[in-house]
Amino acid sequence: MTRVELITVGDELLSGLVLNSNVGRVADALASVGLGLSIVCDVSDDLDEIVAAALAAAERADVVLFSGGLGPTSDDLTRDALAAAAGVELDFDPVVAENLKARYAEWGIPMPEQVLRQAEVPRGAELLPNPRGSAPGLSMQLRGARVLALPGVPGELQAMLAGSVVPMLAELAPGPALVTTMLRSALVGESAVAESVAEIQARAEKDGVRFAFLPNLGDVRIRLTGPPEAVAATEAEVADKLGAQIYSRDGRTMDEVVHGLLRERAATVAVAESLTGGMVGSALTDMAGSSATFLGGVIVYATGAKAELGVDAALLAERGPVDAEIAGQLAERVRERFGASYGLACTGVAGPEPVGDYPPGTVFLGLAGPDGVRTLRRDLPPRRDFVRALAVLAALDLLRRELLGLPVDS
Amino acid sequence: MTRVELITVGDELLSGLVLNSNVGRVADALASVGLGLSIVCDVSDDLDEIVAAALAAAERADVVLFSGGLGPTSDDLTRDALAAAAGVELDFDPVVAENLKARYAEWGIPMPEQVLRQAEVPRGAELLPNPRGSAPGLSMQLRGARVLALPGVPGELQAMLAGSVVPMLAELAPGPALVTTMLRSALVGESAVAESVAEIQARAEKDGVRFAFLPNLGDVRIRLTGPPEAVAATEAEVADKLGAQIYSRDGRTMDEVVHGLLRERAATVAVAESLTGGMVGSALTDMAGSSATFLGGVIVYATGAKAELGVDAALLAERGPVDAEIAGQLAERVRERFGASYGLACTGVAGPEPVGDYPPGTVFLGLAGPDGVRTLRRDLPPRRDFVRALAVLAALDLLRRELLGLPVDS
Repeated sequence: MTRVELITVGDELLSGLVLNSNVGRVADALASVGLGLSIVCDVSDDLDEIVAAALAAAERADVVLFSGGLGPTSDDLTRDALAAAAGVELDFDPVVAENLKARYAEWGIPMPEQVLRQAEVPRGAELLPNPRGSAPGLSMQLRGARVLALPGVPGELQAMLAGSVVPMLAELAPGPALVTTMLRSALVGESAVAESVAEIQARAEKDGVRFAFLPNLGDVRIRLTGPPEAVAATEAEVADKLGAQIYSRDGRTMDEVVHGLLRERAATVAVAESLTGGMVGSALTDMAGSSATFLGGVIVYATGAKAELGVDAALLAERGPVDAEIAGQLAERVRERFGASYGLACTGVAGPEPVGDYPPGTVFLGLAGPDGVRTLRRDLPPRRDFVRALAVLAALDLLRRELLGLPVDS
Repeated sequence: MTRVELITVGDELLSGLVLNSNVGRVADALASVGLGLSIVCDVSDDLDEIVAAALAAAERADVVLFSGGLGPTSDDLTRDALAAAAGVELDFDPVVAENLKARYAEWGIPMPEQVLRQAEVPRGAELLPNPRGSAPGLSMQLRGARVLALPGVPGELQAMLAGSVVPMLAELAPGPALVTTMLRSALVGESAVAESVAEIQARAEKDGVRFAFLPNLGDVRIRLTGPPEAVAATEAEVADKLGAQIYSRDGRTMDEVVHGLLRERAATVAVAESLTGGMVGSALTDMAGSSATFLGGVIVYATGAKAELGVDAALLAERGPVDAEIAGQLAERVRERFGASYGLACTGVAGPEPVGDYPPGTVFLGLAGPDGVRTLRRDLPPRRDFVRALAVLAALDLLRRELLGLPVDS
């Protein structure tokens, strides 16, 4: 059995200032080759601490992964610590230095001198390419263990896990390769999702399929890991059971799914946002190429802004801004103003104060399209950041269901 | 110097399924008596792993804290591991057992037999009262170190840190309490910030002040930890050195700072967003009460949407959507449309494709206010998510500087 340990470097982890989300990224990458972490140690930006942790881990483990401490500042000490632990010098790598200089030249920004710290390499170490950032990773031998040092920046770590680490570990790991697949469900709680698939899970676990439920504000990822055939069969069962709640089986996010459906239909969308203040538009412009299907929108935050968009002023005065019919009118007006196939609107109460009779969490969505207008009320957990994030997901899910001809809420 | 280590127990930590938020709770409690964590290790629910981690930590540290593994189920193994590490038996404590039974009787729930596992105590250990839950904590000696084992449930851990651990550590720790303060800078890279304050850092470290630089997309937090007087003096020096780049010295985020400045001046803002697609509005509606100063905006993503807002059509046809004067006009038009004190606009190239002669990363900001219109070009690192996030920060920083009468770029 290959033993893998992870050492995460940074004072900010030990002070609790930053939650160590890289553990999950590393664990996911290891699971894809049938491995798991035996221990994770957070160490401070202190040379002696990092050296001691490296040596202790190398005594116990076959593979020691590092995350963090490869940046350019004086508290980035992983390179120095690995050289000290191995008893070797740091060499200056002119190729890395040239790459760093080229990067800054491309940006047109003067390069601070200490950036060149990232070109120092413990003698004997190999470099691991970093497609997303400036600091390369390191691969070296230490007391019989293979040490792989990666940057702590999540996007860079993720890219290097996929590009370098997983392929290297796949060769080390003797077991059959396990596969991982992910289904994503929207707007159903983690417990409800887990309960719905409990019977499927109990059966599948006998075939070696492990379930993990990873909730993120109404977006629950269901991760299945196990032998390829059993995972495929289980995935189909889960998708069948959860039906329209499953919006993605290929890793795509909700905005990517919605763009895909709009593109297939040569359709466009414009948004009118109140409580979300631009978050729906932000989600719909996240991916490159979104201008093919997203035209723009209006942030109707103040009540006067809603009237300016052309909502019936008498109705607005009578009902207030939080209302199903107002949501429908916002969707119609923004559809007209932008000449879009669909107008998507949301208004509601983010909180902490109620609006009229409506408590925080009350959200009205409007969708105007070729077939008319529909509206939907959602009562969301009354915490400001939850309400806003879930309202975005609910708005995009309403459009997804319209495009797929699915019922609004099932 | 008292060395404190923390061992957190649980498979869910190693799979990344749960973020280890207890580190922050422990760190805060320690800081209140002038102590910090030297290392944190996450170990799995495995007897041998917990024993090995306990022994290794006890060799190095004066105090070893455990969180987790004290519950009633078969994977709760901290008690067993500590007995094994110390080479002692587990004794059954009838008083703890009676308390557990009384608790269940009070709830009117039959007590599962395995709950009584929580009445097992390594011989020689003292019990630490748990005011919030059923499993008591443990205090025992192991290889010259004091081991304090606490439950992993956050509320219980927190109560026991305050009730038992802090008073015990206050007697052990001789030093004065340390304080932490945070400065935030915008739109300067981590390396450049670090280089600017390198001399101050070198001096301050001699007075026991530790620096940490925590970058997050152009927003660098500079954290200072140390004795109160030295931290206050160092903070003033850093703020003086970095000048207008420092936007916050009290933990507030950029949007909170901008709202505060607008409120002081009884002013309002509306936004016109192209490449950011709603992200500026989203940032300005993040905090509760933002409707006092934020009115709304227009997401002018498609070029046609810019014309609809009233930008000079001939100029737009001639120059294209990425242009300083277009940014200025967008700011003026959105200020007029919403009747706001300030109109804030951004247009630019998020990428990956260039627009006309402009490469990805080119951003033009416009700000219209009582004193006229100003525009600013920013050339940002050419990655779509960076460009968008940095454009938001740059737009808010432009407004902040206008409100404070600071130069646009210094």
